[in-house]
Amino acid sequence: MVYILGLNGSPRTYGNTYKLLKIALKASEKTGAETELINLYEYDIKDCIGCLTDEPLSCRYPCVIEDDMKAIYDKILKADGVIFATPIYWYAPSAIIKRVIDRLTALENMVFIDGRSWVEGKVAGIIAVGNDSGEIQLISLMYATLNSMGFIIPPFASSFFNQKDDVMDDEETLLEAANVGRSVTLMARLVKDFKNIWFDVKLKEWIPKVKSEVKKVIKDNREKIFRERIQVITKLMRE
Amino acid sequence: MVYILGLNGSPRTYGNTYKLLKIALKASEKTGAETELINLYEYDIKDCIGCLTDEPLSCRYPCVIEDDMKAIYDKILKADGVIFATPIYWYAPSAIIKRVIDRLTALENMVFIDGRSWVEGKVAGIIAVGNDSGEIQLISLMYATLNSMGFIIPPFASSFFNQKDDVMDDEETLLEAANVGRSVTLMARLVKDFKNIWFDVKLKEWIPKVKSEVKKVIKDNREKIFRERIQVITKLMRE
Amino acid sequence: MVYILGLNGSPRTYGNTYKLLKIALKASEKTGAETELINLYEYDIKDCIGCLTDEPLSCRYPCVIEDDMKAIYDKILKADGVIFATPIYWYAPSAIIKRVIDRLTALENMVFIDGRSWVEGKVAGIIAVGNDSGEIQLISLMYATLNSMGFIIPPFASSFFNQKDDVMDDEETLLEAANVGRSVTLMARLVKDFKNIWFDVKLKEWIPKVKSEVKKVIKDNREKIFRERIQVITKLMRE
Amino acid sequence: MVYILGLNGSPRTYGNTYKLLKIALKASEKTGAETELINLYEYDIKDCIGCLTDEPLSCRYPCVIEDDMKAIYDKILKADGVIFATPIYWYAPSAIIKRVIDRLTALENMVFIDGRSWVEGKVAGIIAVGNDSGEIQLISLMYATLNSMGFIIPPFASSFFNQKDDVMDDEETLLEAANVGRSVTLMARLVKDFKNIWFDVKLKEWIPKVKSEVKKVIKDNREKIFRERIQVITKLMRE
Repeated sequence: MVYILGLNGSPRTYGNTYKLLKIALKASEKTGAETELINLYEYDIKDCIGCLTDEPLSCRYPCVIEDDMKAIYDKILKADGVIFATPIYWYAPSAIIKRVIDRLTALENMVFIDGRSWVEGKVAGIIAVGNDSGEIQLISLMYATLNSMGFIIPPFASSFFNQKDDVMDDEETLLEAANVGRSVTLMARLVKDFKNIWFDVKLKEWIPKVKSEVKKVIKDNREKIFRERIQVITKLMRE
Repeated sequence: MVYILGLNGSPRTYGNTYKLLKIALKASEKTGAETELINLYEYDIKDCIGCLTDEPLSCRYPCVIEDDMKAIYDKILKADGVIFATPIYWYAPSAIIKRVIDRLTALENMVFIDGRSWVEGKVAGIIAVGNDSGEIQLISLMYATLNSMGFIIPPFASSFFNQKDDVMDDEETLLEAANVGRSVTLMARLVKDFKNIWFDVKLKEWIPKVKSEVKKVIKDNREKIFRERIQVITKLMRE
Repeated sequence: MVYILGLNGSPRTYGNTYKLLKIALKASEKTGAETELINLYEYDIKDCIGCLTDEPLSCRYPCVIEDDMKAIYDKILKADGVIFATPIYWYAPSAIIKRVIDRLTALENMVFIDGRSWVEGKVAGIIAVGNDSGEIQLISLMYATLNSMGFIIPPFASSFFNQKDDVMDDEETLLEAANVGRSVTLMARLVKDFKNIWFDVKLKEWIPKVKSEVKKVIKDNREKIFRERIQVITKLMRE
Repeated sequence: MVYILGLNGSPRTYGNTYKLLKIALKASEKTGAETELINLYEYDIKDCIGCLTDEPLSCRYPCVIEDDMKAIYDKILKADGVIFATPIYWYAPSAIIKRVIDRLTALENMVFIDGRSWVEGKVAGIIAVGNDSGEIQLISLMYATLNSMGFIIPPFASSFFNQKDDVMDDEETLLEAANVGRSVTLMARLVKDFKNIWFDVKLKEWIPKVKSEVKKVIKDNREKIFRERIQVITKLMRE
């Protein structure tokens, strides 16, 4: 059975962010997952202090900062999928979600310590809720961030709402939130038994073998079009 | 066997964008894929004319515009994974990649015609190459776009290079590009036999069943914390 | 004389973020400004609790949260220009900069209370420093955010550095940081005596006067091209 | 008198993008500007071919590509302000706006030829119109791009609409669009007589003078906090 963790980054446990996260997790359960919802505002999560710039290998699990992030780390390590639900504060996640993200570096940076990001292969979903706009700016940032850490983004991995009304009356958005929960769970189940690694450092040894082949193609292409391009390009130059 | 399509959005078939794409596709082959590399600058791809705003159901495959996009559509429909390789032009993909993206709406919009985005469940990778900066701005935009269309973003799905040197001398970047090809292929193989759909419209019927349950939780939470919050919030109000 | 405030969002007061901010402020002084540098990590700045979603008019100056943000608010209110210097943590500002941004809503939301955002017409600059990438993602988010609040973005308003080396050895980047300080100051001086408001609510009364004129143009344009477009668009439709 | 150019990047000259642009330009006129509206879809604007990667100084005005961009270049050179109006196609400007942006490199790159970006000090505004979302993603990208080229972003420089209705019925959005026209014009007038340059290369000579001073501060700060930080950071290290 897969375990899907929902992180609520809204201070309001009765608002639209919470509602959509709840719907998503219910859909995860329906799709065969065990789930848990955490209200981050109930946790003391301190700012990352950027250790790795002073000492690259010092950023690792467990993080040197002693606070409630310890509990969150352990839940994330256990999770097959994580749904980040956040209000849209100035086109970005709330600062508490941001602190969780920054502190996740301690898991991601394990790549330099035991060869593998500790969140590699986990599945991510996003729920973003605001009063007016900025949802895609937020979602795109989260996708780029989480994917760089090793998370999988399954199809239609996000749901958003950007109006002041009660989202419970918006069937279309509820359907999308439910599908975030479903898609994250389906993907988590699909990769559950995948025993391979995703980022393979050993490809380094293989690269030299293809390098010369690629260089040959480049040389041919260059000969074919470079002369013509340079004629066009330099047409108006006057040194 | 999976088929991975590489789209080169650079006008230069001898530059770093092309090189990284070639390395990625070689790694795809090594991981068990058949591959093809298309130089988009050799194709006549016209601007999207935004039909769907006039008539939502008019945007569909085949697109009303007659040009070489027809060949690209067919290759994308056949593909299990697509690697978009693009130069970074002002922090965004080249305009020819942008036209391909805009025109893909004809496949995505099939959701309103036969109930399913025709790119749902395909796997995407990104290669972004520039002289200085903007790679994450570009990658995050592509992730949000492609995922909204239904693409899967597998772990570590992008590779970038933002220097003027020859990328063939940068082992770290070559390793990352190779892993884009590998990760896209591994994921494409993993979902090849997945017979389910990803976005399930039928969840709409299930939503009313959980709605009351969610509303109950919201009511409880609201009662618990709303009074206290409102006291804090209105403390300084003076109407 | 103009007053330019530099906010350091890095925990490291000896790192590249601090260095570039210092250079920028020195250039501000050279351009005729009084300056001040604040290390935000020395201040206790709490999370925004999203009052305005519960009660739109409750978000105002002074903010209901009692902490060191009070001092920051007052410095920002006094400032003609603000330079936000931040490390790049996962393609975004550090969480303490994020909290400052979120809390600035109390000044921006004054638009609904006394008709004007209290940061309108102030000038913003950005310094972003990281080890690898994400600078444009960060800068673009900051520009959109600050401009929506009413800040002016003067030419070349940002400087970034994305390498592990000592930025003091990179003359090009130091020049750019100095120009951020200079550009912010020049603009602050230029608008210092601008007695007009920027966002004019009274234009609302003027709009009906041009509306019919615009509608007339639209009607003409529509008649001219709509018929032709619809023919193209519906060509392949099959309902 | 200032001249404000409106570029319409929508294929539909009867849609919401065009309407908001028209309203903005009317407000520019009311604020004292001469204006012109260009429908880009009526121009043949070809893809940038990335000359500068082959030969940095080859990218200059006039661009080597022969097409209708010549007319657009000349209008932009003449303009004190430019309002870019675009439909939101997948969270980004339409591909024709993108081609204009990419081709503007020929003006911006003049910095390496005659020491100054030829768009430095011009004022930019943005209008973004879509059916659902992505407006901030688009606006933030445009701000970062245009500001890097040297454009000024005046307060509240963008207006957006993300619904399927007729924007002419939405008074709030019309007010915002009008204010884009007004703000761009006010700023254009303010900088019209500014005879200074914005980016000052000569600051390079001044930098060595402050460098030692900055280094001294860094050294002090480092001594003050580095020891303590390193103790915390290395607490759990085990090599």
